[in-house]
Amino acid sequence: MPVNYMFGSDNHSGVHPDILKAIVSANKGYSIAYGDDEYTKRAVRKFREHFGEDIDVYFVYNGTAANILGLKNIASSFNSIICAETAHLNVHECCGPENFIGCKLVTVPTQDGKLTVDLIKPFVKGFGDQHVAQPRVVSITQPTELGTVYTPAEIRVLADFVHKNGMLLHMDGARLCNASASLKVGLKEITGDVGVDVLSFGGTKNGLMFGEAVVFFDKKLSKDFVFIRKQGMQLASKMRFISTQFETYLSNDLWLRNAEHANRMARLLYEKVKDVPEVKVVQRVESNAVFAVIPRECVSRLQEKYFFHVFDEEGPVVRWMCSFSTTEKDVERFVETVRETLAKKCLG
Amino acid sequence: MPVNYMFGSDNHSGVHPDILKAIVSANKGYSIAYGDDEYTKRAVRKFREHFGEDIDVYFVYNGTAANILGLKNIASSFNSIICAETAHLNVHECCGPENFIGCKLVTVPTQDGKLTVDLIKPFVKGFGDQHVAQPRVVSITQPTELGTVYTPAEIRVLADFVHKNGMLLHMDGARLCNASASLKVGLKEITGDVGVDVLSFGGTKNGLMFGEAVVFFDKKLSKDFVFIRKQGMQLASKMRFISTQFETYLSNDLWLRNAEHANRMARLLYEKVKDVPEVKVVQRVESNAVFAVIPRECVSRLQEKYFFHVFDEEGPVVRWMCSFSTTEKDVERFVETVRETLAKKCLG
Amino acid sequence: MPVNYMFGSDNHSGVHPDILKAIVSANKGYSIAYGDDEYTKRAVRKFREHFGEDIDVYFVYNGTAANILGLKNIASSFNSIICAETAHLNVHECCGPENFIGCKLVTVPTQDGKLTVDLIKPFVKGFGDQHVAQPRVVSITQPTELGTVYTPAEIRVLADFVHKNGMLLHMDGARLCNASASLKVGLKEITGDVGVDVLSFGGTKNGLMFGEAVVFFDKKLSKDFVFIRKQGMQLASKMRFISTQFETYLSNDLWLRNAEHANRMARLLYEKVKDVPEVKVVQRVESNAVFAVIPRECVSRLQEKYFFHVFDEEGPVVRWMCSFSTTEKDVERFVETVRETLAKKCLG
Amino acid sequence: MPVNYMFGSDNHSGVHPDILKAIVSANKGYSIAYGDDEYTKRAVRKFREHFGEDIDVYFVYNGTAANILGLKNIASSFNSIICAETAHLNVHECCGPENFIGCKLVTVPTQDGKLTVDLIKPFVKGFGDQHVAQPRVVSITQPTELGTVYTPAEIRVLADFVHKNGMLLHMDGARLCNASASLKVGLKEITGDVGVDVLSFGGTKNGLMFGEAVVFFDKKLSKDFVFIRKQGMQLASKMRFISTQFETYLSNDLWLRNAEHANRMARLLYEKVKDVPEVKVVQRVESNAVFAVIPRECVSRLQEKYFFHVFDEEGPVVRWMCSFSTTEKDVERFVETVRETLAKKCLG
Repeated sequence: MPVNYMFGSDNHSGVHPDILKAIVSANKGYSIAYGDDEYTKRAVRKFREHFGEDIDVYFVYNGTAANILGLKNIASSFNSIICAETAHLNVHECCGPENFIGCKLVTVPTQDGKLTVDLIKPFVKGFGDQHVAQPRVVSITQPTELGTVYTPAEIRVLADFVHKNGMLLHMDGARLCNASASLKVGLKEITGDVGVDVLSFGGTKNGLMFGEAVVFFDKKLSKDFVFIRKQGMQLASKMRFISTQFETYLSNDLWLRNAEHANRMARLLYEKVKDVPEVKVVQRVESNAVFAVIPRECVSRLQEKYFFHVFDEEGPVVRWMCSFSTTEKDVERFVETVRETLAKKCLG
Repeated sequence: MPVNYMFGSDNHSGVHPDILKAIVSANKGYSIAYGDDEYTKRAVRKFREHFGEDIDVYFVYNGTAANILGLKNIASSFNSIICAETAHLNVHECCGPENFIGCKLVTVPTQDGKLTVDLIKPFVKGFGDQHVAQPRVVSITQPTELGTVYTPAEIRVLADFVHKNGMLLHMDGARLCNASASLKVGLKEITGDVGVDVLSFGGTKNGLMFGEAVVFFDKKLSKDFVFIRKQGMQLASKMRFISTQFETYLSNDLWLRNAEHANRMARLLYEKVKDVPEVKVVQRVESNAVFAVIPRECVSRLQEKYFFHVFDEEGPVVRWMCSFSTTEKDVERFVETVRETLAKKCLG
Repeated sequence: MPVNYMFGSDNHSGVHPDILKAIVSANKGYSIAYGDDEYTKRAVRKFREHFGEDIDVYFVYNGTAANILGLKNIASSFNSIICAETAHLNVHECCGPENFIGCKLVTVPTQDGKLTVDLIKPFVKGFGDQHVAQPRVVSITQPTELGTVYTPAEIRVLADFVHKNGMLLHMDGARLCNASASLKVGLKEITGDVGVDVLSFGGTKNGLMFGEAVVFFDKKLSKDFVFIRKQGMQLASKMRFISTQFETYLSNDLWLRNAEHANRMARLLYEKVKDVPEVKVVQRVESNAVFAVIPRECVSRLQEKYFFHVFDEEGPVVRWMCSFSTTEKDVERFVETVRETLAKKCLG
Repeated sequence: MPVNYMFGSDNHSGVHPDILKAIVSANKGYSIAYGDDEYTKRAVRKFREHFGEDIDVYFVYNGTAANILGLKNIASSFNSIICAETAHLNVHECCGPENFIGCKLVTVPTQDGKLTVDLIKPFVKGFGDQHVAQPRVVSITQPTELGTVYTPAEIRVLADFVHKNGMLLHMDGARLCNASASLKVGLKEITGDVGVDVLSFGGTKNGLMFGEAVVFFDKKLSKDFVFIRKQGMQLASKMRFISTQFETYLSNDLWLRNAEHANRMARLLYEKVKDVPEVKVVQRVESNAVFAVIPRECVSRLQEKYFFHVFDEEGPVVRWMCSFSTTEKDVERFVETVRETLAKKCLG
């Protein structure tokens, strides 16, 4: 039996059929390159429906770019960006932020991937001292890289603190739809409405082929972003094929249905796996991921059947993810395999 | 009548049906992210068939990235990269090369976009002088941004000179297939075989949806490129959708058929338009572009019907491009419109 | 009474008379610029006497530059540099390292500013994983920013671990002479001999007017540094005035005498101040600094008389520094002032 | 006879006695580091006397830094900086500008190193086009690297054009005093009064030991420069030793007397050498440099006696420079040597 990749990452899924259909049907005739086309205009309109009329939005190829370029637009070389130690920005972008923004990431240890005012306060200092990086942005991930979700109220508190200090609030929303589905609130209610200034809005992990968006809730902040994007190697020539995906994604609740489904599957996985002896779920399951400690000696044995990432060698903590295409049957089979494999005590 | 975009750029075309079919059929099941998948392995194999067993190849999203990251891998911050004044690298990447590579572009005026040893020799100097940027790379575009094509022998001469000086030869091959089709030689014969060290190999302009490749003809030069690519925001998560395009593109001569067709259409356009009074073709038509001077007062009048770029305000020189999807009928209608519009003397 | 700056920083001192004399006497006739002069040759020779014949050494203007440029020469954009959270590199260079090297600082919390293998081990990982910054350098400060000193054996253990992992050991030796004096070992014994690969060697804090040195213990590592330095805005035109300082500094044990004196004064300060009620010295006094917790309400009152830095608002921890020019009388007067000011309970 | 360096560069001179005296007398007592000291306040006051009350001024170590950091403060990563091909910025800063500012230098060929509106106009374009670098700064050198001098009126015309296009005018004034002396106008009359926005003001080439200044004529433009300077490795700890030099330099017309002398010596050199057969002076002698074509075969023969730079291998054009310490006798002896050496036809 070949290794099964379905719980390894929401990136392992394919493209949602509606998205693919949109791509196929966008392939007719000629369309001006680089985003001046009708597909892009319609997609932008969809974004404004969801995020408010005052936003600006730009499409890029992937989430690393959305984060780095969105932040580059609002931070100077002498600034610091405060984020959780576990932030994708910090651990999984190969120091792209440092290299392309040219500024410092100040990383904050957390229990669950979530920043709080108390946690960041010690790092919000040094304003005006020429020797130290000047705090400029706090970046949070929603849901976090640990699958936990900020409530709108929690974001509001952070945003108020951040703004009071003359700083900006950035959100890495690579899986924002999963948070929205989890909280049962609209996309705007957990972003612009509660003080987010700049957002990376993900699509790929929830059914798109490729394409992410950078959303600016204040148009003054998006000034010059077209140059930052082009220079940043992220201006797609045949833009219509990103735009049509986003138009479809934000229509007929596709974004929400996909996210709800993925969340539900993770919940199901959690319910079933939490009773497996020797599996200890270590984070609240609030979106589409389950983080669990399993016996170290079972990791590779289980990985022979199902690919998954060891999130933290300490534990070890492993990560299992669901996506829009996960089925109940998939979950059942997986839990069965986990149960069997761990029951064997994983003897060599 | 809405503006017609078909001669504006080869980026205005859609996706070749075979490519789209491949994308659709790659959308089944789960596939590991970030390039460890079977699609990518097969695509790499195709590249080795065409470019030689010893190459390394990596996929990125677009041509700007292929240029910048390929060069970043081989140049240090204190190096200079010598290129034609008209190089895409110089004029159409919003100083991304300077920003991300962090080094100097030394630009050489040319008549036809082609560098020669005589032209670059004055800039290949200063080795060891700590005050000046150290020459490291010569970058040529094949075909050039002016549609002209280097012969294999011309590239060989450049490569020998470059290597003799301890430097490397980079090729921006955003439209390499058009050059290959024009010269009736294989892809390897005008790249690795004649001394190219690093190549940006384009796909998007010749029928792909998105995706370009960086080809290293010496594996020592590709060391660390996976980090440069990830950091450079160009590692696609659902890589299979780029890879399957390239596999298809390099199979059954699709790359060649598309390029030959586009070239033939440009040739046809040239043959028909060259007799239009007041159209003066100013570059040899060796690939899929026609560069012509037309009366200044006719530019905007013609642009009301057909979108095209003014390449050089001096002249003015305009650019008309053909693609794999251009038809003979398209060309005829376009030339008819040109003839009519210019005949009217473009009076206001 | 004006504020007294003498215990605020070793940078508040002037220039040692012997150094000034050397500067004055170097001011005769013409001398080739940028380091090809006789003064520089003699200074380099002095460095080789102290650090070994196989080193390469280059002069720069200040310590921030020595750190950033030395590290830039050995780290790539996708690398991480592991350092203590308290490292000057991290906290007092205004994110210059991130900006100019373009890579990530991984910061390690410590008790006393000193790294150990146990402390850094969790960060030495991810080799070959394209998503994460590749560990390349461990940077230690000797003495640390907290005044503590690594023994040669401690450095050796770190160096072995670092090298075993294919990494390099960098030392910020802004006050290296104070460590050497404290340990009673030569400069080479605590650098090249115990595995340091690249060293920032300070002069300004110990009696020079300006000028620091970057020492490479393996000439392969210094390749291209002349370009990195020039590009890095650190190539002095009238280099002789830096070189003559270093020649003098490294002659007749001036470096050692100055450092021994500063250390002795700090020791004296410690001995006297440790008995002052409500002063709690919180770091071992192993070089020329005393770190102490004093009552928060007394800080500004004492600062009205003597300028000093609050090193950590928690505590608060304050820093008092001695230099080559501090006298016993200075120390006595200062301790007297501390005693009196704190005795008053600092009531408003 | 050892090689004589006196005509090789104005950097080959030592320090003017008055400057050295100031340095020596600044070496008393303790002084707060990093520029909060009294010496710096007095020096700033002197700058305001000469350049106007509304300026901001910051000291850095050298001219490369003054250029790069001053420009970094006013240009974004997607901007272009237009300068003469011969600009120090372009040819002698080892692509530091590209690396540290991260933007493009657009270089303009000139006859005499001077830009004009006609010369730069073709490069002031593309505003708003996301594909191209956005023009932001024009940088001129006064006097130019070819020794020629802009009149105030010429600068005014340039400044008006630059400002009309929403851009800024930067001046590399490494030898500004020589221009001022040549034109017999004050420093303000050829900078702020005629529209210069940011100035690199040199000292080292005209009698200082080290130290240059960045002058902002609009305080809005200097916002954040303290961070850019610190991050840029150019914040001197013992700042008083730069400041006292500038205070002295700008007092009692020292800057002017030194510059007038150097200019006069260059004029004398020109008068004497222009009659030497086979010496052809090729630039107007308006400051302290003489550029001449001499027979190629005599270059190295003459360099055995006097060190000088070949400025352009074409010609070859050589550069002879005078400084504040050049004497009439020096000039006479040098011309005598030139005459003799060239008379011999430089046979091998």
